[in-house]
This record gives sequence, structure tokens and C-alpha cells, in this order.
Amino acid sequence: MKEKKQNILIIGAGLCGSLLALRLGQRGFNVTVYEKRPDLRKVNINAGRSINLAFSNRGIKAMKLVGLENKVKQLCIPMNGRMIHDEKGNTFLSPYSGRDYEYINSISRGDLNALLLTEAEKHENVTIHFNKKCESVDFEKTTALFKDYQTNTQFIEDADAIIGTDGAGSALRKSYYLGKKFLFSFSQDYLTHGYKELIILPEGKNNFKIFKNALHIWPRGNFMLIALPNLDGSFTVTLFLSYNEGEFNFSNLNTDEKVLEFFKKEFPDALAHMPNLLEDFNNNPTSPLGTVKCSPWFYKGNTLLMGDAAHAIVPFYGQGMNASFEDVVEFDKVLDENLENWEATFKAYESSRKKNTDAIADLAIDNFYEMRDHVANPIFQEKRKLEMDLEKAFPNEYASKYSLVTFNEDLGYHDAMLKGRAQDKAILNMLAEGKINSKDDLKSILKIITKETQEILEEDKVAKLK
Amino acid sequence: MKEKKQNILIIGAGLCGSLLALRLGQRGFNVTVYEKRPDLRKVNINAGRSINLAFSNRGIKAMKLVGLENKVKQLCIPMNGRMIHDEKGNTFLSPYSGRDYEYINSISRGDLNALLLTEAEKHENVTIHFNKKCESVDFEKTTALFKDYQTNTQFIEDADAIIGTDGAGSALRKSYYLGKKFLFSFSQDYLTHGYKELIILPEGKNNFKIFKNALHIWPRGNFMLIALPNLDGSFTVTLFLSYNEGEFNFSNLNTDEKVLEFFKKEFPDALAHMPNLLEDFNNNPTSPLGTVKCSPWFYKGNTLLMGDAAHAIVPFYGQGMNASFEDVVEFDKVLDENLENWEATFKAYESSRKKNTDAIADLAIDNFYEMRDHVANPIFQEKRKLEMDLEKAFPNEYASKYSLVTFNEDLGYHDAMLKGRAQDKAILNMLAEGKINSKDDLKSILKIITKETQEILEEDKVAKLK
Repeated sequence: MKEKKQNILIIGAGLCGSLLALRLGQRGFNVTVYEKRPDLRKVNINAGRSINLAFSNRGIKAMKLVGLENKVKQLCIPMNGRMIHDEKGNTFLSPYSGRDYEYINSISRGDLNALLLTEAEKHENVTIHFNKKCESVDFEKTTALFKDYQTNTQFIEDADAIIGTDGAGSALRKSYYLGKKFLFSFSQDYLTHGYKELIILPEGKNNFKIFKNALHIWPRGNFMLIALPNLDGSFTVTLFLSYNEGEFNFSNLNTDEKVLEFFKKEFPDALAHMPNLLEDFNNNPTSPLGTVKCSPWFYKGNTLLMGDAAHAIVPFYGQGMNASFEDVVEFDKVLDENLENWEATFKAYESSRKKNTDAIADLAIDNFYEMRDHVANPIFQEKRKLEMDLEKAFPNEYASKYSLVTFNEDLGYHDAMLKGRAQDKAILNMLAEGKINSKDDLKSILKIITKETQEILEEDKVAKLK
Repeated sequence: MKEKKQNILIIGAGLCGSLLALRLGQRGFNVTVYEKRPDLRKVNINAGRSINLAFSNRGIKAMKLVGLENKVKQLCIPMNGRMIHDEKGNTFLSPYSGRDYEYINSISRGDLNALLLTEAEKHENVTIHFNKKCESVDFEKTTALFKDYQTNTQFIEDADAIIGTDGAGSALRKSYYLGKKFLFSFSQDYLTHGYKELIILPEGKNNFKIFKNALHIWPRGNFMLIALPNLDGSFTVTLFLSYNEGEFNFSNLNTDEKVLEFFKKEFPDALAHMPNLLEDFNNNPTSPLGTVKCSPWFYKGNTLLMGDAAHAIVPFYGQGMNASFEDVVEFDKVLDENLENWEATFKAYESSRKKNTDAIADLAIDNFYEMRDHVANPIFQEKRKLEMDLEKAFPNEYASKYSLVTFNEDLGYHDAMLKGRAQDKAILNMLAEGKINSKDDLKSILKIITKETQEILEEDKVAKLK
């Protein structure tokens, strides 16, 4: 720790790994990164991965840390709200915040990853190797076994510490689980729904066929379609649908006729922009939606899990990448504390961080139901309308759950969840009981919501005898 | 299904497996059971397993189903409440219910298992093999691979359906997980605490050194000791303690002096009855406390998980065995529906059952904190006292969470949890705010609790937009 010239081995050069390599490089560590895929700056390897992502304050905070805020801004398309498409093709925009300066961004995963790799490699103490897959980690010896895809040979690397940023299918996490050397709590939870990526191509060159600055949603109760804009004028469209349940599902959408019937019935306005639907539907994989939690993230001072490897979440809060980037910010903060060794550092990092990544995992599941279903519910819509009014009228006093999670990067996810859930409960119940009416004076509404939220939090505490 | 002469292979002849074998035998199926341990009626194999268990209404309901209620009763020692031992050696009894006829029982795991095995084997269509360990299950072919510990050879068995009742470390569940043939949600969660079994020997022959008809607890905030009576006058004592945290923990209790110092300071009255403490402490293993959840429990109509194999829980609600026995009762109910095939049967069983086993898993974690910590909290004690008064005064109208879970065997765990938690929250908050006072008229207290509980349930529903 005192000794900056320590050798750090990072497994995985995805978004989290490449940012971590950059930051540790900036801090003066000797960093070696091994990535199983080819260098995405040289080969197109997008197939099967979501090609754009929602990027917001927590991610931007990380970019500020490494001095890349301006470069990243050029890759971003602001999305000011959800554009809701109903069954009849009507649309309305539901803003993400009542404050104009709060919005999320659509960004290309590949472009962002490429930028981070290039910036990391500018440091002579950072080396990145591609086409080298981690097979397993000997966490007692602090060594990792790799397979070189180019030479088809295996080799072992050691380091002072190994950090696994190797994603939801992490080899390091698998070694923890299979090693049975310590009590390893672990969960993988799949939704009954999967997803498939489709595309709305640009109108001519760089012209957006639907409104550019929104995250489009076609909520249909038990399934939904969403679309995020890309810089080239296209939209990446994602269908979230049950594998086996309901009238339409991935199992029974097994002919072109059925796929067309489904889109004609449920998403006619989207279908009008997707002449390429059948080709995409047949060629693109159907992928599962899973949440991974585990603990401990570290083994002694030898190894540590970060990013999706430690906490993979479903995409419905648009926080997957943001949470992983925030990991690096939080880890960096712990490094500033200059603890006595890696074990103390890893322990301090997990103990402050885990409650927050657990919270965003749960919030992301909540939002699955919210986006799919609740956004079409009148009382939910009334709540959102009221919250927008409150955010506009009291920009410094009121923040919705969505704002707390998305735009309040200095508040941890856990606290954002507790306060946001209590606030939602207060508003929904008071609306349902007629205790507040959106026509009432906003100042008095704010007061009563604040009071009721506080009471809910207090009652929950008493119930847990805390 | 129509065809009763189907061959059912059961993996594991523990409590759940032997009860299931008995019930399926009674229903006319051809049942073959393979158990990895020796026959416990012939060999003493208690070491390392908890040797007595809490047995209550849900378990008794299962015994009624198979006609063993009376035989089992002879193995039971009623425990009417928790006998709380404070630091100074003072004791007070906190009854489990305000209704005299509601109590739990201490029962020997071995005696109960032996009875079930013997009863199952009375059916000529039931065969039980011992010393045969399941290594893996090919759930696509409906075959299981066994190792015979006596001949040290392997063999494969097939069946029309295979049911894994092979406990928390289930080989069938492991095959689901490692097979990666379908999306398998799975979690294993360990508490930071482990446990160690100790013993209070009888005073002379069959004389109980401490009060016989109670579950004794020495709650100490971050750790606790409990003791359950055995028919021979002894008590099985269990220490629940953190592995690594706190002043005293399993890692630092590494000399006889430290163990004695710990018991002298924290459990002097128990220590007085345990001259054999050091020997037991050194000889007996320290075991982890884990919760396992998973889904799906079945693969097509081929295989099914039941009991701890599907849902291992921590022991703090005394419901582990009761929940596994209730599995058999619920499975039996689904068999009565005569669905078209095993797949439909397994599916119907899991879809009605899983929410309840998830609930008891969560309730058992709640009770860890309650037993260890809250039972010594004044407001919690006031609640318990009030609830006992309500149960006495209104035996048909009021039931505490504990009663709902333990004594209301016709109410599912899930509903018991929702109602019980809301009720606890209502009472604790009203006591904290002085809205009810245990000196008030009981009838009016009941009314206000009922109303507040209903409101909490309603508000939770609205918050979830249900």
C-alpha cells in the first residue's frame, strides 16, 4: 500500500476493468490487464451485447475522477424522459426530473470502452493483453490461470493482488464458489423474462425516425419494448418478454407470422419503423436477465471482485455501468485512506460498498415492474406528475426516488432506496386516500409528504427494534 | 399418475425422505430410497448433527396424514415457552402462546427418523438402501449415479421420477446448478455466526438439571446459548456465536482458558451444569448456518427437489423439520388432484409451495435477531406480555406472529409472515408512541391493533400498486 510499485493483475478489460486500470495507472501501480475478447478497437464484437447504455451522474462522477468528463460528453445523447407509447400509438413524455439540468444519456458501450482502454494504455505502467481468458484463480497463491486464444496454450500469472472485473460470469467468483475454502454466500436470480435486441435504423443518414432525446417505452403489463438512441441516428430496441408465460412469449414466437402478429398487435408504431424486424428477431440471441450477489468479495489481501463480477444487476434502472464505475470511485476513496495492507483495504471497501450494490440490485428489480406495468397506472402517473411539479417548484428540497438514485451521486444507493421507497409509499397512499390532491397548494403538499415519509421511516425503524 | 405402479426413486432417507417414502408407499407407488449414511437404527451416527429438534403443529399435521400421531407423541417433550436466562442467572418464562394447548416439542432427530424408516419399510412396495451415496443425477435421462460405500463401486439407477430429499448439500440440486441446461436461480447465504453443540447431562438417571418443559435461552445481544430437553434427562445445548467478530468468537476461543473465561462471564448458570464443557467444546465441530433457496425445483416430469434440498433454513424458528414435513403434506394434496403427469404435478406443487418456504426462510432469519437480541429489549417484552394477554382473553380472535407461524398449520407461512410482521409493527409502534398501554382495556387494545394491522397491510399493498 505504502509501496505504489505493487503489481496489480486485473482480469477483464470491460467497462469496469478498463476504468480501474486507468485509475490505478494514474495512482502509480503496475497494472496488467488480461481480457478474453479481442481488442474491440480493432474488431467488431458487439454481437449479443447491449450496444448502448444509460449513463448518468454516478458514472459521470467517475469520469471526472479520471479527467475524462469532456471526452465522454461527446459520446452522449441526452434523454430527458421516458417517451411512453400506448397501444394506440399515442405518445407522451414523462420527464426524469423536474429540474432541466437532470437527465440521463445514451452512450455506446463500445465507444466508451475504447476510450477507456486508450486512456489507460497512455500510462506506461499499464499493459493490456487481449484474447487471454482467465480459466481459474488460485486465490491462496494469488495466481491466475489463463488460456491464450491465439496460441491455444495456458499460462499462469502472479501478482501482489488480483482484481476480478470479469463480469457476471466471473472466473474469480467461480473459483471462490468451487474452492469451498471459506463460507461464500452467493446468489444468482433469473427473472422469468429474457430480452432480445432489435434495431430501428436511421432515416437516411443520421436522421432519427422517432424523437431523439428520450428513452422510448412501450409498456404492456407483462412485457415491454424500449428504445435508446445512437449517435448514427439508429435506436437500439430491446424486447423484454417472458420465456414461457402469457399469450405471447419467446417460446411460442417461433414463426415469422407469429412475430409479426405480436408486433402488429402490441407495437404497431414501432413496427412501422422496423422493416428489418424479422431478420433481427431471427438472428439475434435471446438472453436471460439475472441478478448476482455474493460475499465476501475478497480473499485475504490476495483477490477482490469488482463490478458485475461482484454484483450483476438487471438493466431496468439504467445503473449497471454507473454502479460499476461508482465501485472504482469508492475503491479509490478507500485507497486514499492508506490502510495497512490490501486485506484491510478490500475489507473496508466491501463493508462500505456492499449495502449500496445490494440496494441497486433490488431497485433495478422494482423498476422492471415499474417500467413494464406501473407507468401505465393512473395513480402512478398522478404521482409522477406531482413529483415533477414538486421538483420544479422546490428544486433544492424535493427529489423523487428516481432522482435520488440517478441524479444524487453523493447519496449512496442504500439511503436513496430507503428514502425513495418511503416517499413513494407516502405519496401513493395519500393519493389513494384523497389526503393529497394534485390541485392543492404545492408547498403544503411538500410539507405533508415530507412528514409522512419521515413517519414511515421512523415506523420501519421501530418495527425492526433499531 | 393414473398408473400408481410407477417407480419413484428417492435420494436421501433423512426426515423428509423417509416420510415421503412412507406416504408414497401408502399411496401405492413403487418406492426405492437410497441413503448415503448407514442405517441409523443400527449405528450411532449422531455426531455433528443436531440431535434434537423443535416439533410443532405443521409437523404433527404430517404425522396425522400418515397415521403416526400417537407414536410420535411418545417421543415428544412439551416446551411451553422460552426460559430466558439473564447475565445474573435470573430466569423468567416467556410462554409461546396465551393458549395452554399451544406449545412446541423437543424431539430426537434419530428416534423420529428411525420410526419413519421402520414404518416406511412395513410397506412391501418400499425399499430402503443404506451406504449408497448419490454422486449426480442425469435429470434429462431420469437416472442417478450412486456410489456404494460398502463395495466401493458405482452404479446407475433409473426411475419414472426421481425426488431429491438429500438435504442442504443435495446432489440433485448440484446437478441442476452445474448442468446449466436451464436457468436455475440459486442462493446460499451464510450468517456471520456458526454453531457448536454441547450438552448438559442428567442429574443421576433421567433427572433434568434445569426446568424440563422449556426451550432455554441465554440471549446476549451478539451471541446466544440455547438448550432443548431430551427424554434421558439431558439437554442438547447449542452455542450460536460469530466466527470472527466481537470480543469472543469461534476464532479466538482457541484455548481452554478462553472458553472457560467466556462461559464464566456470559453463562455462569449454564456452566455450573456443564462440567464436561471443555471436552465437548474441543471435540464437537463448529458448523455454519446457511439458507438455501432455488428455483425451479423440478426438471420436466423427471426430477424434483423437496425438503432442505429445495429450501434449507437456519434453525431459529424451529421450523426446519416442520417445513419439510409440510412439503410432504402439500405434495400429497397435489397428488390428490390427479393432474395429467409428473411435470404438471411438480409445477403445481412448486407454484403453491415456494412462496411459503421462502417466507419461513426469511422468518427464521428474523428470529435469529429476535432470540439473540430482542427478547432482552423492554419494548419487545412489553409486546410479548400484551400478546400473551390477548391470546388468553381472545383465544379465537388473536394470534401473535409466533402463533400464526407455529400453531396455525392451516395458514401458509407466507400469509403468516405478512400478517405477523404487520401486527408486530403495529404493536411496537403503538407502544413506542404511547398509543396503547398494557393497562388499557384489552378489548379496546385488540380493536386498535386489528385496525392498525389492517391499515399497514393495506398501505403496503397500495405502495406496491397491487
